[in-house]
Amino acid sequence: MFLFRDETWKAKAEAKTNATLGKIAPEWRLSSKELEKAAQQRDLTGPFIEQYLEEEELRIIKLDATTLVSKLRKGEFTAKEVTLAFCKTAAVAHQINNNLHEIFFEQAIQRAEELDRYYHEHGTTVGLLHGLPVSLKDQFHVKGNDTTMGYIGWIGTYEGNKDPDLVHKINSQVVSELLELGAILYCKTSLPQTLLFGETVNNLIGRTLNPNNQNLSCGGSSGGEGALQVLRGSLVGFGTDIGGSVRIPAAFNGIFSIRPTHTRLPYRNVANVIPGETTYPSTIGILGTSLGAIELVFSAVLSRQPWLNDPVLAPISWRQSLLDETLARAAPDGSANGNTPLKLGIYWTDNVVTPQPPIQRGLRIVVDAVRKAGHKIVEWQPPDQRTAKRIHLAFLKADGGHDIHKQLRLSGEPLIPQLRETFRLRDPMSLITYQELTVEGRDYEGAYADYWNSTAESDGQLVDAVIMPVAPHAAVIPGKYYHTAYTESINLLDYSAVVIPVTKADKSIDIADPNYTPLNDVDAKNWAAYDADIYDGAPVGVQLVARKYDEEKILAVGRIVYQILKTAGAR
Amino acid sequence: MFLFRDETWKAKAEAKTNATLGKIAPEWRLSSKELEKAAQQRDLTGPFIEQYLEEEELRIIKLDATTLVSKLRKGEFTAKEVTLAFCKTAAVAHQINNNLHEIFFEQAIQRAEELDRYYHEHGTTVGLLHGLPVSLKDQFHVKGNDTTMGYIGWIGTYEGNKDPDLVHKINSQVVSELLELGAILYCKTSLPQTLLFGETVNNLIGRTLNPNNQNLSCGGSSGGEGALQVLRGSLVGFGTDIGGSVRIPAAFNGIFSIRPTHTRLPYRNVANVIPGETTYPSTIGILGTSLGAIELVFSAVLSRQPWLNDPVLAPISWRQSLLDETLARAAPDGSANGNTPLKLGIYWTDNVVTPQPPIQRGLRIVVDAVRKAGHKIVEWQPPDQRTAKRIHLAFLKADGGHDIHKQLRLSGEPLIPQLRETFRLRDPMSLITYQELTVEGRDYEGAYADYWNSTAESDGQLVDAVIMPVAPHAAVIPGKYYHTAYTESINLLDYSAVVIPVTKADKSIDIADPNYTPLNDVDAKNWAAYDADIYDGAPVGVQLVARKYDEEKILAVGRIVYQILKTAGAR
Repeated sequence: MFLFRDETWKAKAEAKTNATLGKIAPEWRLSSKELEKAAQQRDLTGPFIEQYLEEEELRIIKLDATTLVSKLRKGEFTAKEVTLAFCKTAAVAHQINNNLHEIFFEQAIQRAEELDRYYHEHGTTVGLLHGLPVSLKDQFHVKGNDTTMGYIGWIGTYEGNKDPDLVHKINSQVVSELLELGAILYCKTSLPQTLLFGETVNNLIGRTLNPNNQNLSCGGSSGGEGALQVLRGSLVGFGTDIGGSVRIPAAFNGIFSIRPTHTRLPYRNVANVIPGETTYPSTIGILGTSLGAIELVFSAVLSRQPWLNDPVLAPISWRQSLLDETLARAAPDGSANGNTPLKLGIYWTDNVVTPQPPIQRGLRIVVDAVRKAGHKIVEWQPPDQRTAKRIHLAFLKADGGHDIHKQLRLSGEPLIPQLRETFRLRDPMSLITYQELTVEGRDYEGAYADYWNSTAESDGQLVDAVIMPVAPHAAVIPGKYYHTAYTESINLLDYSAVVIPVTKADKSIDIADPNYTPLNDVDAKNWAAYDADIYDGAPVGVQLVARKYDEEKILAVGRIVYQILKTAGAR
Repeated sequence: MFLFRDETWKAKAEAKTNATLGKIAPEWRLSSKELEKAAQQRDLTGPFIEQYLEEEELRIIKLDATTLVSKLRKGEFTAKEVTLAFCKTAAVAHQINNNLHEIFFEQAIQRAEELDRYYHEHGTTVGLLHGLPVSLKDQFHVKGNDTTMGYIGWIGTYEGNKDPDLVHKINSQVVSELLELGAILYCKTSLPQTLLFGETVNNLIGRTLNPNNQNLSCGGSSGGEGALQVLRGSLVGFGTDIGGSVRIPAAFNGIFSIRPTHTRLPYRNVANVIPGETTYPSTIGILGTSLGAIELVFSAVLSRQPWLNDPVLAPISWRQSLLDETLARAAPDGSANGNTPLKLGIYWTDNVVTPQPPIQRGLRIVVDAVRKAGHKIVEWQPPDQRTAKRIHLAFLKADGGHDIHKQLRLSGEPLIPQLRETFRLRDPMSLITYQELTVEGRDYEGAYADYWNSTAESDGQLVDAVIMPVAPHAAVIPGKYYHTAYTESINLLDYSAVVIPVTKADKSIDIADPNYTPLNDVDAKNWAAYDADIYDGAPVGVQLVARKYDEEKILAVGRIVYQILKTAGAR
């Protein structure tokens, strides 16, 4: 095969994706006819993917992660049968949805066999996550495997470095912790080139669509995680969030996530974009098919005292008491129980880009149900979100695309068209401006804290958390993600945020007001992008945002609100 | 008076210092003869300053802060008499030692009267620090007063800003917390222009010398705090540390200090140098005449949940249990008591600049006593301190002196000669280099954590803390501070560090080896700077360094080691 020099990257990408597909056992391969059928299918979740799985496998993958771990502990399943079930599901999911960068099922099965031997010999588990398959966004290094982060130039390297002492020899710290805890690692999921995009597109695998509705994107940057999980190819996995990247895919795919304050989960030895931009750093987050799954994995990692190895972390153990105290404020059905009710802010809109009808309805469902359950709701009018957005975006662009283009040059691959303007190579920002913006950001954080503290003035009770849109739309129509301020503002504040699914877009209800007057050009574009037919069936999630380090509390608030939705019949 | 335009700053400085002196009551003023006598005196501490104080005043100022607070709580002293005693001592101390920028005794006495009224009416105290005078480095804003930070251009402004809504209208957050706790604020102490210097010299007050030995500097940048406290003009006060600035003055003056991890005490609304450099930020620290004084004030501030107002902070309450658990590892005399003994590293030298004889002996005294008390001592051989020093200094200089020169331009005052080369106005560093250095620093922190973790390999026990020099000399001879790596490296790591006094330089013992072969030019300069006669009587302190967030633990280690020194007769 002859290629122009600047197109050799295409051959490398093709070879790599073929090699990955080649790691799927022949008996798990779908025929081209089946693949064609899948491509025509609007919704790949539930019955569609389940047709390719055996009953025994379904029995496993449909369990909640906490139940699965408990059954593994009791010996009701072997680690190997669980691992095989998830490897197969992930294999099918990838074939129909294109959501994996790396497959290492053999390594996973070997580890499962070790765990089973250990269990057989000692009658006890290896750790808190014994036998639980955990998926990873393709930023996490797992010995023996590539981490490309979607960069063609990283294939067969360690972040572009060919040093044989590094290549395939490093585990990210959280990977080591997971292995010590008995988790099974088996695949790495797709993400957008640069990580700085709300869809999942790169030059390695192309694009990952939304399994719920293939008209739409699965979101980004932890997009493959979101897609894989809603297909039950994983119950829980790790992503990262620098501008919304664990929250967006959770909301778009209809699963759960937590974006903690960045000093709680270890980022050490995880590949990243602009790693030297530590003012508003990317943070490790967890996506899961239930809040229980997230709590399980989060608390397990913290039990390892990860701060001893990652000096960035604060030494804050898992605070079950904070979770329990918050849960104790509601009855089992979620309603206020005579203890202090929850006090939640509602942020309908930032008055810059109005959420489309499905999101407006999603927020309304939550607010109505929470209020009906006897908890307090107050309007949220914080410092202007535009300030946060402007500062945050300036930091992402501050190096003038230097880091991104350095990685692209390794292979000669181009920047994806969607980012060509935002991240074209420029002169870096002046350090003086960078430091001035740092002070402006710090002052914004201070003003936001003052606003939050002011919520106690009326009734002596601080707001516990805020109900917010994740984006001004459900899963985005490819190319139509115009406004990321709802997530980016929370990155600037480094707050803790949980995403829960609420409802699905419904063309019979979610009808756009034809007389709506847009607030500005971006608002007009976002409003025009709504199409009830296209969106029909798209998941609608909301984010629940608490202050820094309130992870256990916001998980409890998430549980209560989700229970309220169930009680109200909305879930 | 006619001045050349570029010398108007001198007149402003003179007017300001005269106004400050004018705030001292006539009955507390010293005669010019007394001032002359003081100028000739080598050691101003103890008997010298005490001659100007009444017995009643001495009874108060010689108490430990914890005892003082307890007596105030019991009504054995009124807040007013305590306040008057410290105001007078500070007034005398300033006249003989030139260590104050701001005096607000009237405000203090008024607050003391309020506290006394409250106590009289309610029979209880206002807060945990009821009636305790607390001094402040001149970076903290106190309503009604200037904060000049030594900049002439900041006189009568808010950090150079003349907005009347800001000038004299703002309290730093920690100032508000202290007032809520019942502390009495009465003065602000001297510091070097720019804060980035290990001596205390500026164009406002000139220079503050070391009260223990007027041949020497009081250190910096919280130099006025150190000097005031060893003269008992304050029992405890707040400083800041960006490269050693609470540890150096503590060691040089023979008092105690803590430099916590920067996310424990609130920096909000505190004036600062290069405030936008948040990669290795300045941190609030406490200097005190005892470790008990420091614990008292530290725990009191944390009881206010300062993280609700300062979003930079981690929400870690005062952990008395961590302090108690550590204390429980030694008997009351400090010796190992059958529980796990302490395991301390000893860092004799960084092999770049060898500590002068008094410091070598000080380290030896500590090591011998600790070992004799049955605790473990291991040699400390961490990653090369030069790396930390190089990166850290690069960050201080990264803006090319932009912030410093902006403040200097406000008045036209010049940079002090000692800093003219280091901080002359340059082009700022490129942002790319800045971000690359950030990654290098992060990797250094990781390597240091790995080294620390490796200390458990031999006996299963991690090192608790490291005994280190603060500087390669006792209080420095003005102009001869050549090597700040012993403190700066700890800023890069953001570790918790306590300084305790150990001994005093003694010309009859601390004799330099005339055959010493210097390791390099800087080492040669430092070695040549030692003069046994000049140094005689200078305090020698050491720093005890623990990992990030180990504040309560390192305070306990400091208590045990100090008790061991007392038991051994060294204190």
